[in-house]
Amino acid sequence: MKKIINGVDSLLEESLSGFAKAHSDIIQLNSTPHFVSRKNGSQTPKVALISGGGSGHEPLHTGLVGMGMLDAACPGQIFTSPTPDQMMAAAQAVENGAGVLFIVKNYAGDVMNFEIAAEMLECQHQTVLVCDDVSLDKDHSTGRRGVAGTLIVEKIVGAAAEAGASLQQCKDLGDRVNNATASMGLALTSCTVPALGRPTFDIGSNEIEMGVGIHGERGREPMDLTSASEMVAHLVAAIDKALQPQQGQKVLLHVNGFGGTPLMELYLIYDLAAQYWQEKGVEIVRSLVGNYTTSLDMAGASVTLTLLDDDMLTYWDAPVHTANLRWGC
Amino acid sequence: MKKIINGVDSLLEESLSGFAKAHSDIIQLNSTPHFVSRKNGSQTPKVALISGGGSGHEPLHTGLVGMGMLDAACPGQIFTSPTPDQMMAAAQAVENGAGVLFIVKNYAGDVMNFEIAAEMLECQHQTVLVCDDVSLDKDHSTGRRGVAGTLIVEKIVGAAAEAGASLQQCKDLGDRVNNATASMGLALTSCTVPALGRPTFDIGSNEIEMGVGIHGERGREPMDLTSASEMVAHLVAAIDKALQPQQGQKVLLHVNGFGGTPLMELYLIYDLAAQYWQEKGVEIVRSLVGNYTTSLDMAGASVTLTLLDDDMLTYWDAPVHTANLRWGC
Repeated sequence: MKKIINGVDSLLEESLSGFAKAHSDIIQLNSTPHFVSRKNGSQTPKVALISGGGSGHEPLHTGLVGMGMLDAACPGQIFTSPTPDQMMAAAQAVENGAGVLFIVKNYAGDVMNFEIAAEMLECQHQTVLVCDDVSLDKDHSTGRRGVAGTLIVEKIVGAAAEAGASLQQCKDLGDRVNNATASMGLALTSCTVPALGRPTFDIGSNEIEMGVGIHGERGREPMDLTSASEMVAHLVAAIDKALQPQQGQKVLLHVNGFGGTPLMELYLIYDLAAQYWQEKGVEIVRSLVGNYTTSLDMAGASVTLTLLDDDMLTYWDAPVHTANLRWGC
Repeated sequence: MKKIINGVDSLLEESLSGFAKAHSDIIQLNSTPHFVSRKNGSQTPKVALISGGGSGHEPLHTGLVGMGMLDAACPGQIFTSPTPDQMMAAAQAVENGAGVLFIVKNYAGDVMNFEIAAEMLECQHQTVLVCDDVSLDKDHSTGRRGVAGTLIVEKIVGAAAEAGASLQQCKDLGDRVNNATASMGLALTSCTVPALGRPTFDIGSNEIEMGVGIHGERGREPMDLTSASEMVAHLVAAIDKALQPQQGQKVLLHVNGFGGTPLMELYLIYDLAAQYWQEKGVEIVRSLVGNYTTSLDMAGASVTLTLLDDDMLTYWDAPVHTANLRWGC
């Protein structure tokens, strides 16, 4: 295992310390228990958005804390759910009279721990469960996983909260964005979790993992490594089937890198995906290309489509100032 | 070789096509010859900033074209200099009466081709040569290479040009930023150039390449893979020796990933580098952490320090709107 670290046990702490130093103008780090919260929060009551999950997916979620997006993020150990005490402490720090909205990716550990925290919260609260990964069937035993669409939920609901939407409005909007969003990814290589010290799954030199999850979970099937056009065709077909965008539908197209794939390839994937929907008359009005929901050093990428209504588009465009997503200010 | 591509020969074209589609609000792509130029350029005469270089370093330079930064970028084939006709065509497209400033990384091919283009330009023009890589001695036969500091030169001079600085002022400022900037990097793995189909250099499983260039060129020496603290100590010591920042000096600290290294590790490197200079009383007033000057899928990172004066700080903070660097608008 080749990593720039001092030790498996200190990696998260040292990384968060660097993150907090580099972005001390907009966020602050609480160390016991770990959470990152927004500096200069709202003076008037505003719904507090809190997310979190295992580390190793950066910039999700810590890099998305700030004006117009999350109020706090709770990082767990790598690929490990944060604990309820982190969520409780974060909620106590950022709740300011309008309630707490948890945004949770659909993984058993995350769901359970956010539920425990929610039960203990004394303020009003709601949860949006993100489950945008269409590599699994809708009736899969544990439901669909939450992947790169999470950022889109967080951005749109973050803007609504900033604009003064109520807790129920934020919850409803979050569910609406989640239902309007579908993602699917593929991996060329595994990632290496430092504590494990070796690749988390095996993959042949001429194989890809189609429908991979963001921790390297198996999706649909291993497939032969083939042309980008053929591989992307699988991704967009599954997404198109799930969302069935009509001619004239406005959409956001997000190509997300898992970490080890160069930007040149991500833009090539974008080109192919955009072409597919443009030929169907779908209007791609917003785009996001880059490494946002990563899986450490995994090579691969996912495609995410969100069917936008006017509100969602307005909220997507609203100013945001976080470490890793910033515009309008 | 595992890549998401359709073919080695079409990769650049397809990738640029995706880039142009994803960012059609701010840039446009010229195909014959290749250059990316800013949409909605200045109506009044403004120095036109043009950069370029081999592809494979994205977002450098195409991702840095837009308001407040570059007016055009000329992408060559992967790790291959663009040709003079690209630079000429870009200059003709974006020059609007105040002259052209070429910003060139110090590599023989780039320098030669930008010189040929400059000789053929009929408008007034100047060139800033970036040579911030302190892994090589100042009296090295070909001089020091231009690496991650290039972005800092482009951002600061871009803001000055936007504010109406003259060609000579932009040239002088660019030289000043270059002289105030030092970088050094290390690689854990090689990168794989698609046309070659295999890693460009060999590196042992317990070795790192200290002082590596952004194409995988050998720097100082191979070293044993050791703790992050020891590895980063080498980087910061070389940079500190080159720039000798004094107590109270304001600096910009940039940790750049080469592509295959997770953000968690980049922030850990930032933490160690920041600690080093903070202990010396150096004031880190601005930070940038992420993958900006990449080497395809190479795992590794570089540290860059720029000694800031008040003008540079003002220009760094000025609004910028490009595909991959954006704030203030």
